[in-house]
Amino acid sequence: MPSSTVDPADPVFRLHAGGKLAVASTVPLTSRDDLSLAYTPGVARVCEAIAADPALVDDYTWVSHTVAVVTDGSAVLGLGNIGPRAALPVMEGKAVLFKQFGGIDAVPVCLDTQDVDEIVATVTALAPSFGGINLEDISAPRCFEIERRLDEALDIPVFHDDQHGTAIVVLAALRNAATLLNRKLGDLRVAVSGAGAAGVAVTRMLVAGGVDPQRVVVCDSRGILGRHRDGLTGTKADLAATTNAEGRTGDVTEALRGADVLVGVSGGRIPEAAVAGMAPGGIVFALANPTPEVDPEVAARHVAVVATGRSDHPNQINNVLAFPGVFQGALAARATTITDTMKVAAADAIAAVVDGELTPDAIVPSPLDPRVAPAVAEAVAEAARRAGVARA
Amino acid sequence: MPSSTVDPADPVFRLHAGGKLAVASTVPLTSRDDLSLAYTPGVARVCEAIAADPALVDDYTWVSHTVAVVTDGSAVLGLGNIGPRAALPVMEGKAVLFKQFGGIDAVPVCLDTQDVDEIVATVTALAPSFGGINLEDISAPRCFEIERRLDEALDIPVFHDDQHGTAIVVLAALRNAATLLNRKLGDLRVAVSGAGAAGVAVTRMLVAGGVDPQRVVVCDSRGILGRHRDGLTGTKADLAATTNAEGRTGDVTEALRGADVLVGVSGGRIPEAAVAGMAPGGIVFALANPTPEVDPEVAARHVAVVATGRSDHPNQINNVLAFPGVFQGALAARATTITDTMKVAAADAIAAVVDGELTPDAIVPSPLDPRVAPAVAEAVAEAARRAGVARA
Repeated sequence: MPSSTVDPADPVFRLHAGGKLAVASTVPLTSRDDLSLAYTPGVARVCEAIAADPALVDDYTWVSHTVAVVTDGSAVLGLGNIGPRAALPVMEGKAVLFKQFGGIDAVPVCLDTQDVDEIVATVTALAPSFGGINLEDISAPRCFEIERRLDEALDIPVFHDDQHGTAIVVLAALRNAATLLNRKLGDLRVAVSGAGAAGVAVTRMLVAGGVDPQRVVVCDSRGILGRHRDGLTGTKADLAATTNAEGRTGDVTEALRGADVLVGVSGGRIPEAAVAGMAPGGIVFALANPTPEVDPEVAARHVAVVATGRSDHPNQINNVLAFPGVFQGALAARATTITDTMKVAAADAIAAVVDGELTPDAIVPSPLDPRVAPAVAEAVAEAARRAGVARA
Repeated sequence: MPSSTVDPADPVFRLHAGGKLAVASTVPLTSRDDLSLAYTPGVARVCEAIAADPALVDDYTWVSHTVAVVTDGSAVLGLGNIGPRAALPVMEGKAVLFKQFGGIDAVPVCLDTQDVDEIVATVTALAPSFGGINLEDISAPRCFEIERRLDEALDIPVFHDDQHGTAIVVLAALRNAATLLNRKLGDLRVAVSGAGAAGVAVTRMLVAGGVDPQRVVVCDSRGILGRHRDGLTGTKADLAATTNAEGRTGDVTEALRGADVLVGVSGGRIPEAAVAGMAPGGIVFALANPTPEVDPEVAARHVAVVATGRSDHPNQINNVLAFPGVFQGALAARATTITDTMKVAAADAIAAVVDGELTPDAIVPSPLDPRVAPAVAEAVAEAARRAGVARA
């Protein structure tokens, strides 16, 4: 049966029938008195109060606990550019995760445009209804400009989860792996395979967390980024200028020669021989789903710690460890943006949850660990206050 | 205490604290197996199925039971142009009513623009996430163009409730009042006071329901509309050309001379002497809130049936009698638009609920009557199928 065939009796299709979300009222509405409190005429006094003092929207509407999950359907899971309607089941699922793990009310917003200006204008226009914007499954390099422009335009948090959710959990995992191996982040030689949304954000986050950019090498599908690469623009040009101090050239095998860490976020295959060329006692995060860049059992022959994106292997690098707590903390602090220090604080909090329990097969908490989101939320809110971007 | 002062202990503010809505998950999510069904990897198969057959979005996402409640905050209740943030408590309340009376999951979308082109572009862009668009509290005449252009652009129902919700309930009430008074709709002389969103829609709906346009006179703030009025454009020019066959001129007192019916949707005051000039056995719907155009006790001295928009008087003309059932029926039929015949069917269904119980103080059902929405939904879905605009 081809994967696009619908079998209504199949457990997956049965579960998704009718969608996965509902909107619930949190106030009673059974009498005329209820009606006149929740709606006219009572509601008019709440409206007038907000009109007089717009900050009251945080107290007397749902924005303080609500996030829009926005996509254009251009880079959905590993499925590619399947458009906004086919992306909706993923955005509903994301909203389910927001609720379950962060207690946040998330609304899927699937946009019928892939034009950067139109996406920015649309999200800017609908922002008053929401306390935060979670961008999801928007392809690179458009995702960088969209996030930057929205963050500038809006006074609420904007967070592209494919970039920063992944990057935060990678930094958390690397911190714990380094602790376990008695290494310092600043000494590690890191190879990042993939220069899309996740690769760019992972590189930036690792540097923000203490990795030395001169010891980082980033590869895209054409090989190692560096000053030797002509015609690079935007984020890739930035990476070429700030990483790869040695001036390495060549493919991922060259990038991995003597490296302590591989972070795979490309979906491409990495041969065993390349992993074998890493320094002893290394770390491999092969995060492509469903097929990791290198088979974890194969990687384990050559390195000390292995993580993947899969739930059926140890050390699952799963964004759900980050985004519910990040938004919970940002909303609690009424943060106007999400700074790098807030992301690093989130990574530290995730890492700390398993502090006393570290083993090579448990460098990150389980995605279902209920301790994670509250710890992340508290750390992010505190970091927002320290960074001066909190309104509460 | 001025009405914009916040008293957190006041029952209204207590009720609205934190808003009135939540997003709920309708699927379990407590195990890794749950995660892999509701989210990756399971969800990918649902996405692929929709990508292959976009109609499946109705079956496997929430769009079949979801409506966006869209406003720009330009004409909120009687408060005027208070903007999107101050409008949000009303839109949340509307969503509560959608849920309570229609079982529909409604999401408030308050737009940070009042530009017609930008509103049309924004709503068109976000439409894939929703099964219908309820426009709310958008000022005339912009509301007419916005609704028309969205209805043309989208293949889901678009419904400006301030126009059509009011108009449907007015037609229902007039049908029952005429039955009670043994009059035919086609014989009634009708004066409509107000040529904004509600006045225009009421006039059109009454004509669609059987009132003779030649016997209708519409007034705006400058007096009776007709061929004598220079410089009219748009909807007012249409009304001037199609109503007022007698060529009356002057103010609302002239409009009411010998009239059988007054529909007040203006908010302006109408003097008792004007009502006294109506034909015997007349009907007054004075719908402005909170202050009717003419006091209902005063009107009752001169006419046989009086209705208002207030919950503390008999015969409340309340949109909640219409919109939950209209959308429930339109979504059930997967209607691509909402036709006049669907609106007339809704009015007939509302009127029929109190068929055997008619008295001058009970020409419409109570807003809390649970029989209304299912009856309206069934009638609207059936009318959609007859009109050939249903996809199910």
